[in-house]
Amino acid sequence: MTTPASAQDSGVTRVVCEQLAPRVGDLAHNTALALDAVRRALADRADIVVLPELTTSGYVFADLDEARRTAITPDDTFFTDLTLLLAGTRTVVVLGFCEDGGPTLFNSAAVVDADGVRAVYRKTHLWDRETLFFTPGARMAPVVTTPHGRIGVLICYDLEFPEMPRRLALAGADLIAVPTNWPLEEQPAGERPAEIIQAQAAARANGLYIACADRGGTERGQAWTQGTAVINQYGWLTTTATAAAEHRAVCDLFLHLSRDKALSPHNDLLHDRRTDLYAQESPQL
Amino acid sequence: MTTPASAQDSGVTRVVCEQLAPRVGDLAHNTALALDAVRRALADRADIVVLPELTTSGYVFADLDEARRTAITPDDTFFTDLTLLLAGTRTVVVLGFCEDGGPTLFNSAAVVDADGVRAVYRKTHLWDRETLFFTPGARMAPVVTTPHGRIGVLICYDLEFPEMPRRLALAGADLIAVPTNWPLEEQPAGERPAEIIQAQAAARANGLYIACADRGGTERGQAWTQGTAVINQYGWLTTTATAAAEHRAVCDLFLHLSRDKALSPHNDLLHDRRTDLYAQESPQL
Repeated sequence: MTTPASAQDSGVTRVVCEQLAPRVGDLAHNTALALDAVRRALADRADIVVLPELTTSGYVFADLDEARRTAITPDDTFFTDLTLLLAGTRTVVVLGFCEDGGPTLFNSAAVVDADGVRAVYRKTHLWDRETLFFTPGARMAPVVTTPHGRIGVLICYDLEFPEMPRRLALAGADLIAVPTNWPLEEQPAGERPAEIIQAQAAARANGLYIACADRGGTERGQAWTQGTAVINQYGWLTTTATAAAEHRAVCDLFLHLSRDKALSPHNDLLHDRRTDLYAQESPQL
Repeated sequence: MTTPASAQDSGVTRVVCEQLAPRVGDLAHNTALALDAVRRALADRADIVVLPELTTSGYVFADLDEARRTAITPDDTFFTDLTLLLAGTRTVVVLGFCEDGGPTLFNSAAVVDADGVRAVYRKTHLWDRETLFFTPGARMAPVVTTPHGRIGVLICYDLEFPEMPRRLALAGADLIAVPTNWPLEEQPAGERPAEIIQAQAAARANGLYIACADRGGTERGQAWTQGTAVINQYGWLTTTATAAAEHRAVCDLFLHLSRDKALSPHNDLLHDRRTDLYAQESPQL
């Protein structure tokens, strides 16, 4: 018996989420920040790296001009630099960016590996003031096949709609990567952020892993939940970065376990769905 | 200004859940147990009472004969007795029973008030050995209009399917009553039962209240989560009966708050759904 040369060889997938604090409107600073985070993740032999929503632009735009000044296309040199950084690795990076879509902007996430930009997903459920800057995406969230498993992508508020993780599970996702910017809200003492509870339920309901990379820092007075968390296929937290000084979450997952949806000798999480009923109206009595 | 004569007059709805411990196969004992619980709830001026799944029969049947011996129809004297008990009140009771459906049995829940049995819902997602005894229901879960608001009904495992609370929310439910028998499973230290996390997420995703009445006691070696809990429209627990000696949860809710689905000046929980996308396949890349 030999020692595995890398995490992959042992069936383990190493996921790293980093809770970055970009500067709103400062593209040069933020792209450097993202590349540094990926370098750290590579040093940790990460297989999958998740960075926050709108990493390259920041979030609390003063106006549309500021958003537009930070907008980039998937052909931008940032993505070329990131691809070069990943050369010779099997590492996959999922991160949010402000996408220049020509006449309009999108709140997008890119899936990038050594071959380049594999997928761009445009957020389909826009939160609050995002509606002032962005056009909602017109396509369902993708599932990207990688050497580590099938990665689905959602962005922040998307995950509040149970339809979204469900669709990704039905499309075969093993893990959903969620770049996010969760604004801090009040919660009862001793409770974790509601967004994490929602993510736990989505993981459990679909028998898959979820890795959420939240924001650090404070931006124009906006505080964040700092709820970076990796959740297993039973809905339990495996790692959080909330209290960590480095704001990073590093954990090893057996992603192939998401392929087994059996819950009991008589139950299967996806086959037990009653699709014959879900289109019916509820009887009103 | 006068003191409200009842909870209803103040816009408050009092919900009582009781975590009963029926004896499997003992219909006479269990129906008496249920009527006693309703008497206690009435003494507490309950508007809505929720009792466990299969209250009248117990759960861990030895065989089909035992299940059949405890099966009753909505015309059973138990429901007549319950209706008489509710005479002159506006109280609504939701409880689970083993339904005699002629050639087959159903794991059902009845909604009963002073006018009689208002609705019977037959569980549509059967858990584990239930598949040996019961036929799954063929109709979507109902929403029953009451003086206290619109009550949706789900039973136990139904709630694990996010499609179900979503359908009830779209049908206008203010509260979902969930008779349940949650079998005890392992969970990480300090965590609440996963089923409650699922219920919290369902409440939050749909902006409605959820009242779950779980089982107490142990039945043929089967322990229960004892996770009776009432959850508000933000997904937070308002009351649990887990640690209470009496195994009851009593709480006052402003159910009309479920009618406001606005989350921000730009967001509405139900209108933000992208029904145009949910039928699309995920792009596979």
